[in-house]
Parts: sequence; structure tokens; C-alpha cells
Amino acid sequence: MPDLRKDPIVGRWVIVAENRAKRPHEFESRPHRRRGALCPFCEGHEGNTPDEILAYREPDSPPNREGWRVRVVPNKFPALEIAGSPNKGCDGIYDRMEGFGTHEVIIESPRHVVSTSDLSESQVREVLWVYRDRLVDLKQDRRLVYGMIFKNVGEAAGASIEHVHSQLIATPIVPVNVREEMTGSLDFYHGRGRCVYCDMIQQELAHEKRIVLDTPSFVALCPFAGRFPFETWILPKLHASHYENIRKNEVEELSALLRQVIGKIETALDRPAYNYFIHTAPFDTQELGHYHWHIEIMPSLTKAAGFEWGSGVYINTVAPEASAEIMRSVNMTAKDQHDTH
Amino acid sequence: MPDLRKDPIVGRWVIVAENRAKRPHEFESRPHRRRGALCPFCEGHEGNTPDEILAYREPDSPPNREGWRVRVVPNKFPALEIAGSPNKGCDGIYDRMEGFGTHEVIIESPRHVVSTSDLSESQVREVLWVYRDRLVDLKQDRRLVYGMIFKNVGEAAGASIEHVHSQLIATPIVPVNVREEMTGSLDFYHGRGRCVYCDMIQQELAHEKRIVLDTPSFVALCPFAGRFPFETWILPKLHASHYENIRKNEVEELSALLRQVIGKIETALDRPAYNYFIHTAPFDTQELGHYHWHIEIMPSLTKAAGFEWGSGVYINTVAPEASAEIMRSVNMTAKDQHDTH
Repeated sequence: MPDLRKDPIVGRWVIVAENRAKRPHEFESRPHRRRGALCPFCEGHEGNTPDEILAYREPDSPPNREGWRVRVVPNKFPALEIAGSPNKGCDGIYDRMEGFGTHEVIIESPRHVVSTSDLSESQVREVLWVYRDRLVDLKQDRRLVYGMIFKNVGEAAGASIEHVHSQLIATPIVPVNVREEMTGSLDFYHGRGRCVYCDMIQQELAHEKRIVLDTPSFVALCPFAGRFPFETWILPKLHASHYENIRKNEVEELSALLRQVIGKIETALDRPAYNYFIHTAPFDTQELGHYHWHIEIMPSLTKAAGFEWGSGVYINTVAPEASAEIMRSVNMTAKDQHDTH
Repeated sequence: MPDLRKDPIVGRWVIVAENRAKRPHEFESRPHRRRGALCPFCEGHEGNTPDEILAYREPDSPPNREGWRVRVVPNKFPALEIAGSPNKGCDGIYDRMEGFGTHEVIIESPRHVVSTSDLSESQVREVLWVYRDRLVDLKQDRRLVYGMIFKNVGEAAGASIEHVHSQLIATPIVPVNVREEMTGSLDFYHGRGRCVYCDMIQQELAHEKRIVLDTPSFVALCPFAGRFPFETWILPKLHASHYENIRKNEVEELSALLRQVIGKIETALDRPAYNYFIHTAPFDTQELGHYHWHIEIMPSLTKAAGFEWGSGVYINTVAPEASAEIMRSVNMTAKDQHDTH
């Protein structure tokens, strides 16, 4: 059973999950480049994963068989386990709890492709909708307070399997990065009565220089204080705190935009490794005036080193304006523009 | 001139330093493995670095020539520049300032070795003392409020030059990670009237299971909520908030301990890449009852991926007790134990 432990100084929770451990000399792992017969996520190998939690399938196709378009399964090596107890305890000055939670894998295509840009718009649409479905389902469990959706593509971004997928870890605590955004945006809201994200969007749309793409309901921009070259955020223009309240027509627009932004990053940087994640409000909140859900996309170009680990201050060697300008000027490659499905 | 920018939501400062930029396709750099005639840090090539700020040298040897044991020079590609202005300004909702500060390199040996464990104890002693000397000097400049000392060894830890060295970046702001430790430990101090680090040391020494090494004045331990396998902290047992107030006899003990801990990590993990950094109180504070300086050492075994970037929650696949047990059981290799100088 994994263990959730809280640092007594800064209050940062850490998951100690030895079931995911490698022996000391096995830390350098490369993603499984297994295709076809060997890839556990390819269509036809449904038996190589745990039983599916949810799948969008052809009518009448049985679960855990062929015929699916998007498939959600438990992670075989989960960081957290639903069998745990969410009760908190202490060990002297330390707070700890059993590693209670869920860890799911969203397999985004039956075909062995790698990146969101390899999917068709309609596939991305179904992926974004399955995120919503899983959050709606998981928040029924009152012991869980947060669902973090994230994606790793490429070895440098921490992917351990090549086949296009994303993950969802639901936790009984609010992750520190979200807690800080909640606190910071609440301070701003108390001080000025407005959402800081809405203010940011308004200022960025007026100045234009950090805008990557601007659609009726969404904006993609390189944030003013971005930590990484080509870091890009996608935000809904209309204030909304919870991703899972997204509407069908918004998902349509967002899927095209997300696919386009990733395509631009891949064209500009020759298909780098990348991560994205969704920051949304905790499960145990109603619509919030101060918080604004968004997606953060980060190509893995530079490594965090001693200064970044020690300080939390990042050195960005490409000004966000320059990143945005490059991304505005490149289009997706012909391959990426072609609807592959 | 670099730019210091503050994220309007969480208050995180970022350095935008385009002078350190690489063109988009040049992000994958490997550390310079240049030895001898080509390494700018080797003795005899003092002309390949900017003029030295400080050096411990043989009597009567002129600056920027041979004859030094430890040498401090400005970084050729500084993240921050002392020519900037520390005045803060705004750009709509954003806070920014010129990238004012200093960025120094501490060259730890005239010989082309790589790791702290390749140095003799007396060399490590001089390195630790030069850290102290530089902090004492830099805090005279009232425009600077923090000096972050850190080390990158190996490509995976972000090192761009192989020759053994550390760095010091002094900033006009308190880095967010230190600010969080200051705030968290102050809360604890207000609540219980004690230093949380002192409490932690006391509990760890009583339980023993996470102790790596225990010397009269210092303790090396794997923290209860460590983020990474083999993450190790070194703390003075006697409460002290400012590293630069360390005494000569303490530096003697600390240098032996630091070299031994790194040697143990290198023996257990086959010389991995690693980082270390010193967390000490800001320049503009007197001795503080709530803050406790320490060194954090982190081997680069796993990559931060989407979950860690998104949540700030780390998944540690080796329990700190297991890391400590392994480190207690291994000794430095024969090579490392041999005093190479």
C-alpha cells in the first residue's frame, strides 16, 4: 500500500509508492517503443491491461474487446490505491495517511500513435469528453477531493509507454500547486473583486504579443512569467472554475485548439517531448468566482537543475513574447494537418 | 539585460534571460567533456574565464594565473546582471523588474575532476569556506536579499560543464522555495514556540531509521516526506539560521560529512548525476529562532513528469527509510576514500 506523507515545514504532500520502485541500478528507463503485437495499449490486446472502467465503443461491442475508440483502465502500477483508507494519522510531528486514491490511464486511440497531434479532431474531442466523464464520476466519491489529469509524451517528459495516452490521479488532498493557485486567486479576488485569470486574459488579448491563438470561446497564450520556453496555457474566455462543467460545443472548439497548439509546438521544435495537465477546482467546491480552470502545456526542452530545485525560480531562455511569435508564425505540418482518422 | 517577472496568480518569480538562449533546435545540450587544453576551468586556462572575484591561492601568486586552489569567477552567461536596476515596476496587472543580481561560479579544483567525492577533505573544506566568504561579501550590498548556492553534477542534473564547480546566484527577491520554508517554520514557531527543524532532528535521532550519518555537530538524514529516492538533507544539530555564520571547526566536520554522503550515494547508485543546494536565511534578517539552514542533496534518478509539474506532489518510489538503510550499509568506494590531493 502506498503512503501519503506531508512535509512538516512547507506542508507538501509526497506519495511514497514502492510498488512502482525499480532497483537502484534500474532508474534509467526508456519508454516502451513496442508496437503491434507487443504494445499493451493497442487494439486487440485489451487483455494486457486491467479491466476497463469506461470506454467509448461501437454499439454492442463487449467490454475489454476490440471496437473501442477511447478506453479508460486502472494503471497497472498505481501511485495510489482505492483500497486504502483516507484516514489521516500522525507519527510524532509528521502527518501521514494511507495512499488512498485512484490512478487511471486514458488510452486515446486503438492505433499505435504517439501524440495528440496524431489524433483526428474527433478523437481529441472524445478524449476531452472522457476527461469530463471521469471527473464527474470520481467526484461522487466524497473521500476524493481532487482529480489531476495529465499527459506525458516522450522519454524526456517522463513517458514510460509510447502509445498515445493520458492519466488521471485522484487524491484525498488538494495538490499544493492547485492550492497555491486557489489561495493566490482568492487573495486577488478579495482585494479587487475580480478573477485574476479573467484580468490576465483581458490584458493579453488587448496587447496581443503573447497570444498564440484566439478562438470565440478560448485563448492560447504564453504566460507573462512562463517558466519554460514555449510554455502555453489554454483558458476559457468565459469565467468557469470547473473543467467538468464544460459543454459539448466548447469541447468541439477546445479539441481543435489543443490539437493545433501542440501541432505548432511540434513544428517549431521538431516534435519535442511534452507534458500537459488540467488545473481545475477541487471536487468539494461549487462554481467559484475567483478560480478559472485552464490547461498548461510544457515542452520538455530544458532540465530543472540545482538552482530551480533550490529556489523554485525558473530561468526561461526564450521570452514568452518570442515563443508566442514563433508559434503564431508556424503552422502544423502537412502530416499533422491531415485528419488521420 | 535579463528580466525578473512575477506570476500574478501564485507570486512565483521567473528569470527571463535570453542571453542564455539557444535556438529552438539547440535545446539538447551535453555537458562539455573537454579536458586539459580545452576545459576553461582547468589550471592554466584562467584567461578563458572572466576575471576572478576571489581565489584561495599560493602566497604571491598573481590573480588570474596558476597557483589557486579554489577560484570564484563571474558566470560568462549570467542569469542575472549586477548592472541592472533593482527597481520594481508594473505592466498592467504584472510585476516585473530588471534582471538585477549576480551569478558566480565556484571552481572547486584546479584539476579536471567531476564530483565533490573526487576532492580531498581539505579541498571540500575550502569550498565550504568560500561559500561563506561570498555570502558575507554579497550581503553587504543592500539591494540583494538572497544568495542561493547550488551544484549540478552530470548531464541529467543540468550540468553544462563537467569540471567540478558550484554556483551562486544572488537575487533582489527571496526565492519562493525559501519563502515557503520561512513561512511554514514561522507558523510552527508561532504555534509551538519551537523550531520545526530542531523538532525533526530530535525525532529522527530518536527513531534512527532515516539517519544516514550522525556526527557531533551535524546529522545527515533522508527526510520523512522526501520527494526523490536517496534525497538527503544535512543539518546542523545546534540551531542556526544563517549558513554564513558557520565556524571553522564546523566547516571541518561538515566537509568530511558532505564528502562521505555524496560518496555513499555514488557507491549505492553507480555515480548518478546529482544536485545539492544550501537553504539559508535571507540577507536582510538577523539570527532567526524559527529558521534552520541546511543542505539538500538530490540524485537525479527520476524525471519530473506531468503529474509532478501539475500537482507539485512527488511520487517517491523508494521509502526514505529504505534509502537511509542502503546508504548506511554502503561505504565510499576505495577510489573515493583515497585522498586525491
